[in-house]
Amino acid sequence: MKQLREQVLEANLEVVRRGLVLYTFGNVSGISRDDNLVVIKPSGVPYERMKADDLVVTDLEGKVVWGELRPSSDLDTHIHLYKAFPEIGGVVHTHSEYAVAWAQAGRPIPALGTTHADYFYGPVPVTRELTADEIKNDYVRATGVAIAEAFGNRDPMEVPAALVAGHGPFAWGRTPDDAVHNAVVLEAVARMAMYTFSLQPNAQGVSQALLDRHYFRKHGAAATYGQSEK
Amino acid sequence: MKQLREQVLEANLEVVRRGLVLYTFGNVSGISRDDNLVVIKPSGVPYERMKADDLVVTDLEGKVVWGELRPSSDLDTHIHLYKAFPEIGGVVHTHSEYAVAWAQAGRPIPALGTTHADYFYGPVPVTRELTADEIKNDYVRATGVAIAEAFGNRDPMEVPAALVAGHGPFAWGRTPDDAVHNAVVLEAVARMAMYTFSLQPNAQGVSQALLDRHYFRKHGAAATYGQSEK
Amino acid sequence: MKQLREQVLEANLEVVRRGLVLYTFGNVSGISRDDNLVVIKPSGVPYERMKADDLVVTDLEGKVVWGELRPSSDLDTHIHLYKAFPEIGGVVHTHSEYAVAWAQAGRPIPALGTTHADYFYGPVPVTRELTADEIKNDYVRATGVAIAEAFGNRDPMEVPAALVAGHGPFAWGRTPDDAVHNAVVLEAVARMAMYTFSLQPNAQGVSQALLDRHYFRKHGAAATYGQSEK
Amino acid sequence: MKQLREQVLEANLEVVRRGLVLYTFGNVSGISRDDNLVVIKPSGVPYERMKADDLVVTDLEGKVVWGELRPSSDLDTHIHLYKAFPEIGGVVHTHSEYAVAWAQAGRPIPALGTTHADYFYGPVPVTRELTADEIKNDYVRATGVAIAEAFGNRDPMEVPAALVAGHGPFAWGRTPDDAVHNAVVLEAVARMAMYTFSLQPNAQGVSQALLDRHYFRKHGAAATYGQSEK
Repeated sequence: MKQLREQVLEANLEVVRRGLVLYTFGNVSGISRDDNLVVIKPSGVPYERMKADDLVVTDLEGKVVWGELRPSSDLDTHIHLYKAFPEIGGVVHTHSEYAVAWAQAGRPIPALGTTHADYFYGPVPVTRELTADEIKNDYVRATGVAIAEAFGNRDPMEVPAALVAGHGPFAWGRTPDDAVHNAVVLEAVARMAMYTFSLQPNAQGVSQALLDRHYFRKHGAAATYGQSEK
Repeated sequence: MKQLREQVLEANLEVVRRGLVLYTFGNVSGISRDDNLVVIKPSGVPYERMKADDLVVTDLEGKVVWGELRPSSDLDTHIHLYKAFPEIGGVVHTHSEYAVAWAQAGRPIPALGTTHADYFYGPVPVTRELTADEIKNDYVRATGVAIAEAFGNRDPMEVPAALVAGHGPFAWGRTPDDAVHNAVVLEAVARMAMYTFSLQPNAQGVSQALLDRHYFRKHGAAATYGQSEK
Repeated sequence: MKQLREQVLEANLEVVRRGLVLYTFGNVSGISRDDNLVVIKPSGVPYERMKADDLVVTDLEGKVVWGELRPSSDLDTHIHLYKAFPEIGGVVHTHSEYAVAWAQAGRPIPALGTTHADYFYGPVPVTRELTADEIKNDYVRATGVAIAEAFGNRDPMEVPAALVAGHGPFAWGRTPDDAVHNAVVLEAVARMAMYTFSLQPNAQGVSQALLDRHYFRKHGAAATYGQSEK
Repeated sequence: MKQLREQVLEANLEVVRRGLVLYTFGNVSGISRDDNLVVIKPSGVPYERMKADDLVVTDLEGKVVWGELRPSSDLDTHIHLYKAFPEIGGVVHTHSEYAVAWAQAGRPIPALGTTHADYFYGPVPVTRELTADEIKNDYVRATGVAIAEAFGNRDPMEVPAALVAGHGPFAWGRTPDDAVHNAVVLEAVARMAMYTFSLQPNAQGVSQALLDRHYFRKHGAAATYGQSEK
């Protein structure tokens, strides 16, 4: 788990370098699917003095199995996402400001252009609001449940992010680092989408053909972007 | 008072590092409740050459009891807040641009999401406009009076900030450092709220249940965020 | 004139540090009233390799009396302002983006708050559009004429800036450094005013009493801001 | 070609320094008209470790004639622009956020002020949408075709940029460095134009006289801006 702790630490620090968080907001986790163990940021520890050994290891019931500190208060959302989305290896939650604005507005982010289509194969969904009961009794896990519900049968790897209504974005990926990369692009996409609606309130978004072209240029067996790995 | 002067200096410099002020705008103070003495930034001195010994110590009538320089021209607002809100230990005033925009618009900032709810238990109020008489005769103190009025019987620690109509934000906290932390989050919240209304002009804000859940997660006896102190 | 060249160089560099210009856009000048000589930035020279000796000295007819380089293409506007406004000692022109937006919108910036009132005693005016004849025959000087016209009998030191319609801001002050300081605050005021109208399309601005209180707190015989000079 | 590879590398890095790209987005190319060879950024290589030898040289059919890496996936658009616009020596594509917003909104950027007029002699056009057939069969080249179509008989050196609908900006110039300079100004112009419409939804833009005055001040035989070359 030492290597995963290093990766998760690095991914947490990358979130800061990319300007997605303020103070101790935000958290990144990673999972070892072999061990069914999750590594997550500790709660409320300043990023500038966080070390790999401060990260917390828990099982899939949220029990701490390694580490001195209390895990992020969002742990149960992360765990639910790992259970609901078996393909993912990393989860990130931020309060990045433009994605939060869409979440607060309760609007999904439509695919308005090719930057979006390069990463998200369709709108980034926004969850339903949680009920008062869910909020009182099982808030953090219910957040994960609402995200999974928003996907239904859609493949969560095709749109690796969601907006929690009135709260903010979660993003994910094959690794913690991937998850952060998606969160960074999500924020850029959210910003450009807001600007676009300011210029064109009836913006309709890209055609299915363009969405397909760009998404599958970067994803799937026929991807052509980047250098082929040798 | 030397330690408080150092704290207040540091809090003033933090306001600069966080990008909340331009030139010599803004000011932070702290109070020693034991001594009934206030430490405040001097008026119009550039932050980059401000030293702890440049800070001014006054009593609660605004009389300088230590220091060579003239205190911030906003001193009487700070003093009134210390009198009206006995729990607070630090006050900060900035012209941070998004909070100013809400103040200039004369609109309170509603609790549109959980970032807000983590820090402010309800809308951040905007004061009434001052009368011409108040402005002419007792402007600076009247600003503090209007802030206190905007709270009525509400607990000023539950919403540790206010917008002075046509002017800008004041924030406070248990310490000068806390006050600045709240001012930084206020600016982020103001920015995200403006973006949200641009996307959704009828945004309604979070439910009481969500407001409770987030606020009391970080505040009060049952708080669960961060590491328990040992 | 060596000292003035140093001051004008420094003021030009400050414009860059404050983020008001891109590439070689923008220019600052200063005047020696004793000699009736103007020092101005050369045209199209990158700021990062500009030296005091690159600055150009001209008389009030725009004739170069010292220096190897061609003066800023906006020279005649500067000269007209020095003639029309005898109290000023420095002029700056930028394409700072929010002030440009107001200029392009053809709207004066109303006094919406105390940041504005601390520096500008009333709206920042926008010029009329120039006629096709003026543009063809005497464009640069006519720009200065239109600015002076926009002031009529108002004191240009009370509102030390104007927006040239479809173009951008000019600001001025007692010294080149003062002029730049006013240009920096103008940009902040322009930004906050745009945000304010986004939140409140019918924003009315500050009362006369508040405008008086703030403006005369920093200006005139009864000013109380800052440290008294000894 | 070594010198051109160095120039194209430098132009790619300038795009990063100017904040126009995220991750490996964006690409700059240059052409040697003598050799009919194009130098372009490799696909998906991080800017921070790109070296001149990583750049790819292709002929005008897109065949790699030098280099180990796969060329930018946008290569065929660049090549089409070099064929359609014989005067140009460099092309740049970015996802700079304000230009993208206009592209996503499907709106050309009108000439609202003199910053625009200094660089673009009229509106920056937006292409028609590509057909589903074009997108499926010959997407990258068709993007170049649509850009050339948007110019018709207009001189592409007079408006050295276009917005691809639902995608983002392409810019060009006499050299790769020029192309990037134009892309940087385009982004500033796009940003100021968005602000302007927020303040004035019916903004009409500059007169023909002002457009002429500013454009020809910087371009053509009678240009007066900058230092004459000796």
